[in-house]
Amino acid sequence: MEQATQVTPEMLNEVLAAANEAQFMANNLWLLVATVLVFIMHLGFATLEAGLVQKKNVVNILFKNVMIVSIGLLTYYFVGFNLMYPGTNPGGFFGFAGFGLTPPDGGLTSAYGSYTYYTDFIFQGMFAATCCTIVSGAVAERIKLVPFLVFCTLFVTISYPITGMWKWGAGWLDAMGFYDFAGSTLVHSVGGWAALAGIILLGARKGKYSEKGIKPIPGHSMPLAAIGVFLLWFGWFGFNGGSVLSADPASVSLVFVTTSLAAAAGAIGAFVVSYIMFKSYDLSMVLNGILGGLVGITASADGVGIPSSIIIGLVAGILIPLSVTFFDRMKLDDPVGATSVHLVCGIWGTIAVAIFGNYGEGVGTLYAQLVGIAAIGAFTFTFSFAVFFLLKLVFGIRVTSEEEVKGLDVEEHDLSAYAFN
Amino acid sequence: MEQATQVTPEMLNEVLAAANEAQFMANNLWLLVATVLVFIMHLGFATLEAGLVQKKNVVNILFKNVMIVSIGLLTYYFVGFNLMYPGTNPGGFFGFAGFGLTPPDGGLTSAYGSYTYYTDFIFQGMFAATCCTIVSGAVAERIKLVPFLVFCTLFVTISYPITGMWKWGAGWLDAMGFYDFAGSTLVHSVGGWAALAGIILLGARKGKYSEKGIKPIPGHSMPLAAIGVFLLWFGWFGFNGGSVLSADPASVSLVFVTTSLAAAAGAIGAFVVSYIMFKSYDLSMVLNGILGGLVGITASADGVGIPSSIIIGLVAGILIPLSVTFFDRMKLDDPVGATSVHLVCGIWGTIAVAIFGNYGEGVGTLYAQLVGIAAIGAFTFTFSFAVFFLLKLVFGIRVTSEEEVKGLDVEEHDLSAYAFN
Amino acid sequence: MEQATQVTPEMLNEVLAAANEAQFMANNLWLLVATVLVFIMHLGFATLEAGLVQKKNVVNILFKNVMIVSIGLLTYYFVGFNLMYPGTNPGGFFGFAGFGLTPPDGGLTSAYGSYTYYTDFIFQGMFAATCCTIVSGAVAERIKLVPFLVFCTLFVTISYPITGMWKWGAGWLDAMGFYDFAGSTLVHSVGGWAALAGIILLGARKGKYSEKGIKPIPGHSMPLAAIGVFLLWFGWFGFNGGSVLSADPASVSLVFVTTSLAAAAGAIGAFVVSYIMFKSYDLSMVLNGILGGLVGITASADGVGIPSSIIIGLVAGILIPLSVTFFDRMKLDDPVGATSVHLVCGIWGTIAVAIFGNYGEGVGTLYAQLVGIAAIGAFTFTFSFAVFFLLKLVFGIRVTSEEEVKGLDVEEHDLSAYAFN
Repeated sequence: MEQATQVTPEMLNEVLAAANEAQFMANNLWLLVATVLVFIMHLGFATLEAGLVQKKNVVNILFKNVMIVSIGLLTYYFVGFNLMYPGTNPGGFFGFAGFGLTPPDGGLTSAYGSYTYYTDFIFQGMFAATCCTIVSGAVAERIKLVPFLVFCTLFVTISYPITGMWKWGAGWLDAMGFYDFAGSTLVHSVGGWAALAGIILLGARKGKYSEKGIKPIPGHSMPLAAIGVFLLWFGWFGFNGGSVLSADPASVSLVFVTTSLAAAAGAIGAFVVSYIMFKSYDLSMVLNGILGGLVGITASADGVGIPSSIIIGLVAGILIPLSVTFFDRMKLDDPVGATSVHLVCGIWGTIAVAIFGNYGEGVGTLYAQLVGIAAIGAFTFTFSFAVFFLLKLVFGIRVTSEEEVKGLDVEEHDLSAYAFN
Repeated sequence: MEQATQVTPEMLNEVLAAANEAQFMANNLWLLVATVLVFIMHLGFATLEAGLVQKKNVVNILFKNVMIVSIGLLTYYFVGFNLMYPGTNPGGFFGFAGFGLTPPDGGLTSAYGSYTYYTDFIFQGMFAATCCTIVSGAVAERIKLVPFLVFCTLFVTISYPITGMWKWGAGWLDAMGFYDFAGSTLVHSVGGWAALAGIILLGARKGKYSEKGIKPIPGHSMPLAAIGVFLLWFGWFGFNGGSVLSADPASVSLVFVTTSLAAAAGAIGAFVVSYIMFKSYDLSMVLNGILGGLVGITASADGVGIPSSIIIGLVAGILIPLSVTFFDRMKLDDPVGATSVHLVCGIWGTIAVAIFGNYGEGVGTLYAQLVGIAAIGAFTFTFSFAVFFLLKLVFGIRVTSEEEVKGLDVEEHDLSAYAFN
Repeated sequence: MEQATQVTPEMLNEVLAAANEAQFMANNLWLLVATVLVFIMHLGFATLEAGLVQKKNVVNILFKNVMIVSIGLLTYYFVGFNLMYPGTNPGGFFGFAGFGLTPPDGGLTSAYGSYTYYTDFIFQGMFAATCCTIVSGAVAERIKLVPFLVFCTLFVTISYPITGMWKWGAGWLDAMGFYDFAGSTLVHSVGGWAALAGIILLGARKGKYSEKGIKPIPGHSMPLAAIGVFLLWFGWFGFNGGSVLSADPASVSLVFVTTSLAAAAGAIGAFVVSYIMFKSYDLSMVLNGILGGLVGITASADGVGIPSSIIIGLVAGILIPLSVTFFDRMKLDDPVGATSVHLVCGIWGTIAVAIFGNYGEGVGTLYAQLVGIAAIGAFTFTFSFAVFFLLKLVFGIRVTSEEEVKGLDVEEHDLSAYAFN
């Protein structure tokens, strides 16, 4: 170029290509970093749930969470990704682009958007597995291992991608204006509905509800639980921030602020209300309040003002102690509070889109949001209930009374979580 | 552009804008990733402090750290950010730009520098809360929960932003050449001074100092403490690396090297000196040696040579066992060594700017550094002492003797950290 | 530029420079983020190993891992980096560019590639220390602290950089077509060979192998072990992804997919085979299966198809229970299974390059791979055996029988890992 005396359009286009490539690199890089952050949420769930169960069931919950990520990623590769993203504008209820990955361009270029096909797969794959992790906490301490893993495999292969496609795969809910930015409904309440189906069919842990009232069964390690919540918040920067699907500075930085302040407000809401209700500074409520705030803001993190994000988080935090108490009154035994966090606050966050969101006309209307919540809830709960029911019929899903008393660690895994003598 | 036969300046400007946008995206992205890294330092502090306290006070310290992040972010949104960064070149002691965030450009564009307004807020907001986390460790195992949270709220809303403004908000210390790259003084010694005020007014834990001498009260979990230090080092890449305020490859990579080698040298310094002093391989000293090295290099990580960074870290590591012993002799009871790490090594790091720094004439002179240390120390200590004193007078800041013996977890939180039976 | 009426080649070159700078920023940024991710692998190793040893030796293993990072980074600064990367195309067995860092350009510009000299150093420095971390687990619970640290110092200063130079420093193995993308051999099996030398010379832990057979010695905390594996997987995104040495979207996203799916398949392989062998759902096997899958894919993560990556991980996972059983039969006592994970799966991964890799003619041939495995194995094992042997002769490397029974924590560190009373 140094020899040229005149600049031709071709020369300018080459330079433009270099600038566009730089933008593509930054966009793709952020999606990959976000993938890593979402990945570590699996450790967050594992430690949170391990901390909140009894000492005798810790190996079991760790085992399940380790297997869920692995099964989730593999099934999402073989089936889920193509079921969830069947192609451009299918508009309908169902679509499927085939087994395995078949990138249009070898998966390598920007033809696919501001990131490569492989980046898209691995980012979405990390999401897919999280919905099962939500279930594992709720059904902990009494479910049989193999039926649970079979459920997860079917759930992440079939149910999660189909309802996901309705919105993110350009399906019918997307067409009618339903909005769910990063998955208050598509990921969190979906996991919550499956959890609810599971705990209804399983029944409560032995001794939890009796004529004497509700017996508290405290988690065995609050440090593990706190580690879990901090790691989930940490990962949520990738979960919500990555859902911008580019490194667009305006959007991603707004999402960081709304997400953080909703989480913080969730802690405050749960702190105040749980103090009023229980007259103590309840750590597990505050931890779940943070998670509730995060779940609540997930549907609208890219399209609300900062004050709105604080209100959304605050309300979610307030909902936590109320919801935990409600489920206990209904004798629905959820050792980690997953239904309160993911189902209740997931629904709240999806409704909040209609109240606080700025998405333009016809997008995120209250009607569309309610239809989305109901349709996805009905499908997911029915699917989950049917699968758990069949598994119960064929194999049984609950461990024996003796195994439950002795603990799943020794009975199913031949190993104690701790050797402290 | 394909139809054009000539390249106009307008066409070139469009391409230049694309290239500049790509740089802006990379700069902003690094600040956001650094934000995530600084966020996880809160988990680092939580696990470090939880590991170093007794088993009976673990829920309490976790509760405090969870609340501090939440309170810190919210108050920084409502007041702190605008108090710390009141606008361009105020040059004075005090300035305030109003309540809440009012981004000049909707917070979304690069008008604000190499990052958006929202990015700036959330990065600085993560810093703000850390100074209170430093305090929580030092006053652990005997402070009342609510007065402590009131102190934190006032401290992070008023004190931290005012002294921060003196340098980073273009205030009077900045004008006179005081230099503190990422906060050896502005963050760490500020937290250390507040901690010192707290432990003076609180007094030592029961039985710590008696006629029989100093009773060691070992931390309840060294794995938690080690997890904390590794996470803090991990987060420090964002704390120091992000303080470059751009993704400038030269500066950020230099900061990574100086920061890492100072931390490593801190471990060596503490290892050797603690072995000479105590004739044992003292894990807690080495862990604090790493933190000391990190605090020490924080003021000058962008402007010293690599050999200097090693010396700075080594000296900081050597200071740790000496300082811990000194505070114990003074009967100032600090369960986690926060004053040694953050106050002593923070002062050392700020002085080291004058010895090793290359910042050009008039910047980082010994005089300016000493004035900065003294002024910020005097303000912070006075503020903290006054607030703690008033809280002591009005509410009391120390739990009862009975609560201290039984532990704060059961007394204040109605929950044990572990259910191991 | 606004006043110009004509666009000159000089003007275009300025814009091109801005675009190139943006690409340089993105590339360098990814390497720095990858550095942070590899750093946290040290916490992964520390928690994994701490979890898998007995309660009485936890402080010792934490202490060693903290010191290893610190010693590793400092020696890599003083010697290792220049020994491993002596300059362009040395082609031979040995080369050395001097002590300390002497960046050609002040370390600050892109003259060095798509990242700065300092970025290169700190990224490679994080790798260097990991190989010693591999050793620390295998020789745990019976090795003396100071001789172990002396071994690590020599190993990371001399042995690791020399064999590393043979491939990554453009040495003779590189010239003959040996391929090892991110270090199945250069990092992992190198650590594994050193571990093997150590456990041969140390002998098994007391009571592990007796006439009554093999006594299982369970790890003291499975949550710590699980945290370790998740953090290692997390960090591996930087280990493999960063080894692309740029943010090239095509390569990095491919590496993310192959790495993740190999890890997932490793879990499945270990799950199935360990169930067949032991009739239980063995958490430690599944955890090591994930690590085996990660080690296995490390040599070829950038150059195999997705189905191949799944097969590589699956085979690695299958190898884990077989290998652990084999080493136990040979009475080679490895408390954490490091030789199975890093040596056996490292060799498998290096061979897999020849079976599945697409690297063009003459690169990654079976012959070259076998020569590389053998040459590096012979050098490393000989070096390690000689150093451990000399240390044994001069200082002794094994703690006394009494110390082993009481535990290294109290005997060497005067501290218990837990104060739970």
